[in-house]
Amino acid sequence: MLIFGSLLLTVTVCNGWVSDRFGERYQETDDVSLWPLPQKYQTTSSAFKLSASSFQIVHAKDSTAGPSCSLLQNAFRRYFKYIFDYVKKHNADQEKVLDAELTELQVQITSTDPECDGYPSLKTDESYQLSVNQPTAVLKASNVWGALRGLETFSQLVYEDDYGVTTINKTDVSDFPRFAHRGILLDTSRHFLPLKVILANLEAMAINKLNVFHWHIVDDPSFPFFSRTFPDLSQRGAFHPYTHVYTPADVKMVIEFARMRGIRVIAELDTPGHTQSWGKGQANLLTPCYAGSTPSGTFGPVNPILNSTYEFMTSFFKEISSVFPDAYVHLGGDEVDFSCWKSNPDIQKFMEQQGFGQDYSKLESYYIQRLLDIVKATNKGYMVWQEVFDNGVKLKADTVVEVWMNNQVAQELQKVTGAGFNTILSAPWYLDYISYGQDWQTYYKVEPLSFDGTAEQKKLVIGGEACLWGEFVDATNLTPRLWPRASAVAERLWSDENVKDVGSAYKRLIKHRCRMLRRGIPAEPLFVGFCPHEYDGL
Amino acid sequence: MLIFGSLLLTVTVCNGWVSDRFGERYQETDDVSLWPLPQKYQTTSSAFKLSASSFQIVHAKDSTAGPSCSLLQNAFRRYFKYIFDYVKKHNADQEKVLDAELTELQVQITSTDPECDGYPSLKTDESYQLSVNQPTAVLKASNVWGALRGLETFSQLVYEDDYGVTTINKTDVSDFPRFAHRGILLDTSRHFLPLKVILANLEAMAINKLNVFHWHIVDDPSFPFFSRTFPDLSQRGAFHPYTHVYTPADVKMVIEFARMRGIRVIAELDTPGHTQSWGKGQANLLTPCYAGSTPSGTFGPVNPILNSTYEFMTSFFKEISSVFPDAYVHLGGDEVDFSCWKSNPDIQKFMEQQGFGQDYSKLESYYIQRLLDIVKATNKGYMVWQEVFDNGVKLKADTVVEVWMNNQVAQELQKVTGAGFNTILSAPWYLDYISYGQDWQTYYKVEPLSFDGTAEQKKLVIGGEACLWGEFVDATNLTPRLWPRASAVAERLWSDENVKDVGSAYKRLIKHRCRMLRRGIPAEPLFVGFCPHEYDGL
Repeated sequence: MLIFGSLLLTVTVCNGWVSDRFGERYQETDDVSLWPLPQKYQTTSSAFKLSASSFQIVHAKDSTAGPSCSLLQNAFRRYFKYIFDYVKKHNADQEKVLDAELTELQVQITSTDPECDGYPSLKTDESYQLSVNQPTAVLKASNVWGALRGLETFSQLVYEDDYGVTTINKTDVSDFPRFAHRGILLDTSRHFLPLKVILANLEAMAINKLNVFHWHIVDDPSFPFFSRTFPDLSQRGAFHPYTHVYTPADVKMVIEFARMRGIRVIAELDTPGHTQSWGKGQANLLTPCYAGSTPSGTFGPVNPILNSTYEFMTSFFKEISSVFPDAYVHLGGDEVDFSCWKSNPDIQKFMEQQGFGQDYSKLESYYIQRLLDIVKATNKGYMVWQEVFDNGVKLKADTVVEVWMNNQVAQELQKVTGAGFNTILSAPWYLDYISYGQDWQTYYKVEPLSFDGTAEQKKLVIGGEACLWGEFVDATNLTPRLWPRASAVAERLWSDENVKDVGSAYKRLIKHRCRMLRRGIPAEPLFVGFCPHEYDGL
Repeated sequence: MLIFGSLLLTVTVCNGWVSDRFGERYQETDDVSLWPLPQKYQTTSSAFKLSASSFQIVHAKDSTAGPSCSLLQNAFRRYFKYIFDYVKKHNADQEKVLDAELTELQVQITSTDPECDGYPSLKTDESYQLSVNQPTAVLKASNVWGALRGLETFSQLVYEDDYGVTTINKTDVSDFPRFAHRGILLDTSRHFLPLKVILANLEAMAINKLNVFHWHIVDDPSFPFFSRTFPDLSQRGAFHPYTHVYTPADVKMVIEFARMRGIRVIAELDTPGHTQSWGKGQANLLTPCYAGSTPSGTFGPVNPILNSTYEFMTSFFKEISSVFPDAYVHLGGDEVDFSCWKSNPDIQKFMEQQGFGQDYSKLESYYIQRLLDIVKATNKGYMVWQEVFDNGVKLKADTVVEVWMNNQVAQELQKVTGAGFNTILSAPWYLDYISYGQDWQTYYKVEPLSFDGTAEQKKLVIGGEACLWGEFVDATNLTPRLWPRASAVAERLWSDENVKDVGSAYKRLIKHRCRMLRRGIPAEPLFVGFCPHEYDGL
């Protein structure tokens, strides 16, 4: 490949060729491919050129944000690079094939508080208006979060014409997300994910206008979160206490990197099940299981009958609430196995005292209820997996219930929203399940509001999440397995519900995947074909 | 991760920890994990240390190969690096925890012709004897090919003890492959694979003692092979004539890189089907399809009724036979679609003249027969997909028939070997088909000789191939999708037929996959757990 290095500069690189099943190749007439598709947009054939030596992204005069807004300054740099990604070429004198030039993108923040130093939230307004016209394009948003989304769209509108000229067409966009919560779950317990991998995937999320990183940070297999209050949790519970741990500095970096891209980081600290790794560094936290009348040496879920458990949780969640700035923390609550509780005589006695009979879901609810009160006291809202709701635990009004079980999804959505709770959907989007072929189409075809319910109920569906559980993925294969499959979920959650033509999506997604490659994300191919610039990593 | 850079050097890195489903972690007592398992080996607890500053791999005095054997010199360097991969550590003064030291590995080639400048072949003797004892280990092989396999085993025997000391135990190995043909098929037509990706996978093949790279280099979607005789084939048939092409220099590099690792490169030039891309650069090669009485503008398989076709094939295969040094070329011959032939009046007339009736498989055989004669004249042997045999084409005695159809595999093996032909099996090892979970176990459990046949027939099964067809893989995801799934096939084809315990394989394969990571191959995880050194690419 190297021997073509100099040659490439003089060769017209054809753009947007794809090959179908039978090897016929064709050029997409449309050079631009927006993903996810904006709510409204109008484009014309009138084209303007952009030059890396003169084009600027600037704060509009009447913007409430200025050069001191480092979030936007960073975003300007990032998108400038994406727009002019082959700087070398632009050093050469270029033939002027277009007379009209776009010299500026003005970013105008209209709200009094641009939220430069803030964090995105469930209530964040991500809408923006973009008008591309000579000589100046204008991007309007009430705050930085909408501006980030608009910058992404602007960068997607730029293309290289046949002569390699960086070009953008006269275009108007008015855009906003259909759903407020558009997430990706990554699991750093079943396999440790190096920081580099997490950051690359946050970058890919921004390219896809996703805005929630659901960080399933600990679970049975390992506890990579370094707690200042309980350092033994990772010291003993991580796969390795130095090489397989997220330090406070690491966590801060993830949160800030995400914030810069308008992404919330919601940590999940799942209890009382899924806690085997917690037990290694915190004595007496887990329930001792019994074999007959003697302890078997193994441990079950968190021990719900000891005061020390709740003292621990109070200190621990106090730390969590200060480490993670988001208004929500995910408390898990899924898949609690009762067999160990059942085997333990102390638990049995407690059940009797509380009058729970043999209904261990009551014990689970007892634990969760006390935990919720502890977390409530930290002034955080909480998210839970659906079992917590199903078991009738009393939830705060602002609780978000995550529907993950892939049976009777519609009924569950109906129930949860019928009870007045916000809900997000992840059941149809478990991306760890792989199969041969183009499964992105299945994800794409999901309609989150296809359940019986009132308009009010539908409003309570605030979004969804693509979950990539960690059993079979680590740094070697996670990124290509997630992208562009998660892009299908991203468009479903951002674009209008009528944007559902798989054929049109296929054409755009092929180009979107090539764009991700160009930006350094190893997104896997949809089918036979190629990108003008293939991934050059390994 | 960076902030631990200096710390890591002083921390004992624990080796070989794995985590099971429930998060319990345990240390394998066996630090060593050989893959594929040698035919015979005996190891003891007696351990010797190795020092990067004194250890040498040298030619034994009575070896028929010496320093002028660049293949071995290269291999010595490669394995020295693998053995001492953390050179930094060894610069520091190290406590001497072991008194016994191994200072030398002597490589003794016994045959008069060590084959330093040769190519491996189907008849290559890959056996070796390895004796590790103080102060000198001896690796004996009749030629360089066996030496390469033994060097790999030697490098796998080396481990770091708890104090980071590079260690090897007193061990004797006597090893040879069960099957002579142990291949990987990669498809560079459905997606172009950058050279870097091909070379990395050749490296991984050597680590797994695989010895045939079946290069499915062209097919319907694209023709990336640059032919000096017919440059238009790639000029017009490649995805892009400059960026998506294998130049003669590229092909040479692949062949030499493979040779250095004892790997044969067998090119597949599949005809008469799978040739859409050929038609772009070679007029009149493909059959014009008809819609009613007029040409439809589309094309079918190679046109078997024109003399020009055979003239083209004669020139083309003359070039192929000189570019690819292996004694075999793969001629394909699979999946010929007759509908276009049937539509064409000239073909119909020819069928009549030849007395083929309506049996288009006779036409296919007519074409193949003439092609085989052309290739025979280049003094090459050929491999074909099973249809060619099934259709009763007359084959040279040394033909290798590849069984790929996953129905009635046993019957097919019985038939092919019953007719006296060599055969290789790929049907159960189509690694492009993915599914959730540990499918490597399915590949591992295959017994290639489980068909009814005489001992003579069984001997004709000369091996197998893991095929990774290119519909859904490119540079972004090919390598982790292939490894360690193909490792399962590698052990099946190398080790004794009694090596089939999945549990023991699982434990070794976990470590083998970590070893691949350490050597820069992004092999994906088998299940929950971790490697001491995670992949640090993206």
